[in-house]
Amino acid sequence: MILLQTRHVAMAAAFLLIGPVGRGGSAEPPRVAFPEGYRGWFHVKSATVNEGNRAFAKFGGIHHIYANALAVNGFTVRVFPDGAVIVFDVLEFKTNVDKTGTEGVRRFVDVMAKDALRFKDTGGWGFEEFQGEVRTEGSLSDAAAATCAACHASRKDHDSVFSSIRP
Amino acid sequence: MILLQTRHVAMAAAFLLIGPVGRGGSAEPPRVAFPEGYRGWFHVKSATVNEGNRAFAKFGGIHHIYANALAVNGFTVRVFPDGAVIVFDVLEFKTNVDKTGTEGVRRFVDVMAKDALRFKDTGGWGFEEFQGEVRTEGSLSDAAAATCAACHASRKDHDSVFSSIRP
Repeated sequence: MILLQTRHVAMAAAFLLIGPVGRGGSAEPPRVAFPEGYRGWFHVKSATVNEGNRAFAKFGGIHHIYANALAVNGFTVRVFPDGAVIVFDVLEFKTNVDKTGTEGVRRFVDVMAKDALRFKDTGGWGFEEFQGEVRTEGSLSDAAAATCAACHASRKDHDSVFSSIRP
Repeated sequence: MILLQTRHVAMAAAFLLIGPVGRGGSAEPPRVAFPEGYRGWFHVKSATVNEGNRAFAKFGGIHHIYANALAVNGFTVRVFPDGAVIVFDVLEFKTNVDKTGTEGVRRFVDVMAKDALRFKDTGGWGFEEFQGEVRTEGSLSDAAAATCAACHASRKDHDSVFSSIRP
């Protein structure tokens, strides 16, 4: 988790450097399809990024990580087959007066999908981001996607995947 | 969510009244089987119960609610078929120095399973609790299970289920 957070802090810094994401009204299809049905996939882990964390602007809230059936075994063997998809679902999260923390609206959904041939230039993984409830249009610029790939590539012993399945 | 939290606060109070749960070393099988594979079921929602909440001693941490395939449709039609199972998975949750919140060890797993005939005396639902990583022995006393049933029964318009699927 610590590693994941650290990497996403780095990603957030990179986002700031390359400016706003988005392909602004482009009719181009998403680089990776929206991961329909992911709420029924395997739940890898969850975490919150709270006010005061330096990635808060980008990743603030609660996130849940899901893996499709093809991806689950990859966390153990550290190699993910074509068709493996991992989702990073980010929602607003608020602390209530009764000291509970509850989920709010969806901020965005990040997806990474394995296709060794199609995404051969980025370690075999394609990256995309969907804002709010949007499902048909990806918001990740090519520069931002390249940043995802470069950062994830640093995790070479785990086939570019940062997260681990918590018990 | 508010309703759910409120009800669980009530449950926590009831637990205190009836004393410690557990059937202490009984060889009796769990009232409801451990929900194997629930991490791959539909993820209904998550929330945290933080220090200062009056249910903290019992429910403090982060919880994730899951529904098996038979249960998912019940959230919409408000009637759950036999075989529907809902899981309330409670983990420790800590805030780190970098202002992230991360999951710790499992505290317990609560399960409610629909079987109209077998559990006819408790609204058609059977209740069980599994401590930590224990899967073969339930820890809910008969008195505690009756308290679960009585409280859930107050939610009669939703077939005794408190939670709703968040978008």
